[in-house]
Amino acid sequence: MSYNRVALIGLGLIASSMFWAMKRAKMGSYVTGYARSTETREIARKIGLCDSVCDNLKSVVLDADLVVLCVPIGAMGKIMAEIAPYLKPGCTVTDVGSVKRSVIDLVAPNIPKNVHFVPAHPLAGTEHSGPESGFAALFDNRWCLITPNGADPKPVDALTIYWKALGANVDQLDPDHHDLVLAVTSHAPHLIAYTMVGVAEDMKRVTNSEVINYSATGFRDFTRIAASDPTMWRDVFLSNKEATLEVLGRFTEELFSLQRAIRTGDGDFLHDYFSRTRSIRRGIIDAGQDTGAPDFGRPKD
Amino acid sequence: MSYNRVALIGLGLIASSMFWAMKRAKMGSYVTGYARSTETREIARKIGLCDSVCDNLKSVVLDADLVVLCVPIGAMGKIMAEIAPYLKPGCTVTDVGSVKRSVIDLVAPNIPKNVHFVPAHPLAGTEHSGPESGFAALFDNRWCLITPNGADPKPVDALTIYWKALGANVDQLDPDHHDLVLAVTSHAPHLIAYTMVGVAEDMKRVTNSEVINYSATGFRDFTRIAASDPTMWRDVFLSNKEATLEVLGRFTEELFSLQRAIRTGDGDFLHDYFSRTRSIRRGIIDAGQDTGAPDFGRPKD
Repeated sequence: MSYNRVALIGLGLIASSMFWAMKRAKMGSYVTGYARSTETREIARKIGLCDSVCDNLKSVVLDADLVVLCVPIGAMGKIMAEIAPYLKPGCTVTDVGSVKRSVIDLVAPNIPKNVHFVPAHPLAGTEHSGPESGFAALFDNRWCLITPNGADPKPVDALTIYWKALGANVDQLDPDHHDLVLAVTSHAPHLIAYTMVGVAEDMKRVTNSEVINYSATGFRDFTRIAASDPTMWRDVFLSNKEATLEVLGRFTEELFSLQRAIRTGDGDFLHDYFSRTRSIRRGIIDAGQDTGAPDFGRPKD
Repeated sequence: MSYNRVALIGLGLIASSMFWAMKRAKMGSYVTGYARSTETREIARKIGLCDSVCDNLKSVVLDADLVVLCVPIGAMGKIMAEIAPYLKPGCTVTDVGSVKRSVIDLVAPNIPKNVHFVPAHPLAGTEHSGPESGFAALFDNRWCLITPNGADPKPVDALTIYWKALGANVDQLDPDHHDLVLAVTSHAPHLIAYTMVGVAEDMKRVTNSEVINYSATGFRDFTRIAASDPTMWRDVFLSNKEATLEVLGRFTEELFSLQRAIRTGDGDFLHDYFSRTRSIRRGIIDAGQDTGAPDFGRPKD
């Protein structure tokens, strides 16, 4: 059931982690890689990322059994149109995009008749990006969500087995539901973190270096998320507009109710609210999705 | 310059960490401790927290050279009034509260004439609370901010030396400026995290356990902050109302401008915004206030 030849298009954090995880799993696939920038391709060659780094899209997908789109969502449609003529009949195209409905709308129309398209989204990452940021354990015990969108069961099963071999748990979801859930767990939190860091950056004129020095009081957590790749995140927000705006709307309503409680001195409201939110963290730790160690087990100097 | 006898009032995360840090520093002070709840005092006795655990406020402050208020801000005024008659002449009262103007307003009026009051705030903590959550390294390379508020230089110097011995860097700040800076670095981020987790909790009806399982995509970071002690944080917001609401007002304005950019599809605005916020994290890592390891160096399963 495994792929003889895998093509990774885009060589950032996710693609490089996939490569190292494939090697760790001793999958035996031959992995080709392509990145648009010459610099990225040079780095990839230097660090041994991919069995062969190709200089164009045609050669990277040639004879590939699995083609993985690992580029920002906004670039996927164009790349799909470009590779379509060179795809091997019977091969599977998948992606790792954080939004699924838009990706389907962009990619599916260009999928040739004899090629399978199985959209997927591994829920893993760090704030680092680029070909040197990947590592084999990135997907361990994280979820990879497949949104089959009518794909044949066989390529879906093969992709499931593939992601499990990379260390992930695999689940299937409807694309629209995926986009709503991810708006809650990922897209809205990222926008909020970017916003808070933007406010602090703006207030640096008032607070000098104090925002930096005194960041260990909560703020620094937000800066990690807000250090994520700007291009990737621009495309996420533009392509999951509706769900993100809905969740942000709810967020704003809640924030206003908490602000009013502060303004009117309603301590009971605040205390009740802050007590409820504790249990959700417990659930996350119990589900193996975060460490219970204080402060994320941050290493001490 | 060190204190022969130190009294810790309230035995949570901060007080217990202070005790273990004092022992680590081999300060030689005799440390008494008091907590309102019988259960907390029993746990403290069981785990050897404090050289002696007292059952009332009178005995804990008796003959103490340094009295540290480690209780939620809302409880400080009452406790100060209660201990005032028993304080040793010439001793120093300090606190660890996250807001300084309110603490000064609540505590200073009850300080006896022959006692020094030196408000302070160690910028350190984790999401855990209670007597068992403390550890000696909590303050290492973190900042402790002293807001002297007209105190004599000698007790200020002594407290500075004390906090340095616990591992902290010490700085002095005007109380109102402290409260504004902390509203940016701590109070607003905490309220925002509580809000986002509250929204997710509310949407769990739509998303089942998906919010929990798929939290590693950003959301779980917010849940750590939103697992902080509800009573402590209720008091922080109620006592730093003005600065918190000002920062939240700015936050809301910024969030609206980003929401509009999403709605109108203004990718350049988003990309520029997300690029600016990256540099502030770099500054925090360079200042030794966070780890540069991906994902906070979270331990892998």
